Amino acid sequence: MRVLGFAGSLRRASYNRRLVESAARFFPEGVELSCWPGIADLPAYNEDLDGRSPPPAAVRLRTAIQTADALLFATPEYNSSIPGGLKNLLDWASRPYATNVLRQKPVAVVGASTGFFGAVWAQAELRQVLRACGARVLDRQLPVGRAAEAFAPDGSLGDPTLADALAEIVDQLVYLVSGTRMNCGCGEPRTDRVRAVA
Amino acid sequence: MRVLGFAGSLRRASYNRRLVESAARFFPEGVELSCWPGIADLPAYNEDLDGRSPPPAAVRLRTAIQTADALLFATPEYNSSIPGGLKNLLDWASRPYATNVLRQKPVAVVGASTGFFGAVWAQAELRQVLRACGARVLDRQLPVGRAAEAFAPDGSLGDPTLADALAEIVDQLVYLVSGTRMNCGCGEPRTDRVRAVA
Repeated sequence: MRVLGFAGSLRRASYNRRLVESAARFFPEGVELSCWPGIADLPAYNEDLDGRSPPPAAVRLRTAIQTADALLFATPEYNSSIPGGLKNLLDWASRPYATNVLRQKPVAVVGASTGFFGAVWAQAELRQVLRACGARVLDRQLPVGRAAEAFAPDGSLGDPTLADALAEIVDQLVYLVSGTRMNCGCGEPRTDRVRAVA
Repeated sequence: MRVLGFAGSLRRASYNRRLVESAARFFPEGVELSCWPGIADLPAYNEDLDGRSPPPAAVRLRTAIQTADALLFATPEYNSSIPGGLKNLLDWASRPYATNVLRQKPVAVVGASTGFFGAVWAQAELRQVLRACGARVLDRQLPVGRAAEAFAPDGSLGDPTLADALAEIVDQLVYLVSGTRMNCGCGEPRTDRVRAVA
């Protein structure tokens, strides 16, 4: 299973990249988690550029999403909403709309901010946007506030409640992929089942 | 009075650029309305790039907003929200946060989409973002749906109800600027007063 992560902040010392990385320890063995490096490579979305020869960065993005089994987004909050660069990435990913690579893709959204609220508005808006694209979005959030103090030296989340919540989100995301593959239509995901399936 | 317009779509034949242009006829004589051409010039916002020497496109944007008396945004809706490129422009405009050039700036938001709903979600989200930046945002929307059929050959809005609503939004925006200048604190804007003030 391959999971593609996206960190919505482009800073070298991005807390949201750390958040994606800190999720790695909760995926079952054999799951490959990588963080997409190319948000800054995309031009602002322009339908005139998106004809027979879309920009190479958009083609790479669409291929990477198509070949991933699941996506994990970690977003900061810029002005009460999604960072423009991350939204622009989704605008590119979501075309052509009817057959876009986000359709039916299992997705989880988490977020970190330096303020107290942990990017909850950005996460809510991001889930709505991803649903509009046709993705299967977990109805969960992970608000990591005061991000500058949130990570232990080993990169894990210092607050055990937050760490447990992240582990649970990872479990549910894995279950969403596995459940899809098995087409079992089961109800509530259970950690023991997820581990077994994985 | 100088009004700076922003069209959220970058297509050459953008309906939202037409919407900004169609607003021009409703501004009082002497008001200069221009449409910002540089959304595509901005890189994705990155705090690491925003130090002593921000990107020239960001400096130009901040200066243009600072020297404008009011802003008029016309946005399409991409995946139920603001186009990433337009949001990215606001992310650049809004830094440094405490003294950002959007603070107290009179702003109106309108929008056109090819679907039926006229970008109402994008407009709502855009107003929220602009308020978070400290702008004085008119609590009005203009949903121009079915944009491909919305404009008359002379560039005006074909539907007289929509055209009247756009005229009223322009009046209120002008009043917001004039009222600010006069610091009169009056209540409901009235078209005759606005024309007189302008």
